[in-house]
Amino acid sequence: MKNKHQKFMEEAYKEAQISLQQGGIPIGAILVRDDEIIGRGHNKRIQHGSSILHAEMDCLENAGRLRGADYKKCTIYTTLSPCNMCSGAIILYQIPQIVIGENENFKGPEQYIKDNGVELINLNLPTCKEILKNFIENNPELWNEDIGI
Amino acid sequence: MKNKHQKFMEEAYKEAQISLQQGGIPIGAILVRDDEIIGRGHNKRIQHGSSILHAEMDCLENAGRLRGADYKKCTIYTTLSPCNMCSGAIILYQIPQIVIGENENFKGPEQYIKDNGVELINLNLPTCKEILKNFIENNPELWNEDIGI
Repeated sequence: MKNKHQKFMEEAYKEAQISLQQGGIPIGAILVRDDEIIGRGHNKRIQHGSSILHAEMDCLENAGRLRGADYKKCTIYTTLSPCNMCSGAIILYQIPQIVIGENENFKGPEQYIKDNGVELINLNLPTCKEILKNFIENNPELWNEDIGI
Repeated sequence: MKNKHQKFMEEAYKEAQISLQQGGIPIGAILVRDDEIIGRGHNKRIQHGSSILHAEMDCLENAGRLRGADYKKCTIYTTLSPCNMCSGAIILYQIPQIVIGENENFKGPEQYIKDNGVELINLNLPTCKEILKNFIENNPELWNEDIGI
């Protein structure tokens, strides 16, 4: 039987699949407050020509303007370990918990996240690894652009 | 006679003024590559109902998709010390130099920025301090929202 984190991660994974279907980078994220999804998003580098709409950023943007007190009740689910930009956004808003799908294709500043009081849980899911690994193998230049290389 | 950094900071300050005229939070930023401005932006929390468009993020977004090699030739000018989100974006793209207008109204993770190899120069300008100080005094709740409090 799947636990809560696995069920919510499936929703983040659906966002990654949507992005892939659109020709985009398959990374997805959702924002959950009190067990309710209040924001969803996926990487939009290709779809919107965006340098800042990583999945987590798109998800936070789509959740709209929230009060600090609201963010402190949230968990953010993302199919991939968040980069410095997305980690910074999570720290800015003091979101207390991140659940990630994997950190093999890319590993962000996880120690810095933890040092800033954020709990990080890695579900280490083969589905999240495979969808991105295949994309990176077929689109290495796009991937490097997305992580600033 | 003004030096290069002061002249470019005036352009970032113009962006802060534009935001203020629009009823927004008066923080501005520009991205400069090889002494040419390639991106401009200002805080758009109020104007766009955005939780991620701080001045630096808006500036990076408006500069469009760049190669990693391009970011490495850039300096980002911002009227205020960048928060964790904006600092993280600068670190992600390995922008080697940040010039800030001030860090009295707010101070981001400057040591973390430096630890990641980014040079940080603080021009400590009264103009940048005053425009934001006045805004914060008149709009404390909006300001707290913008910095996640």
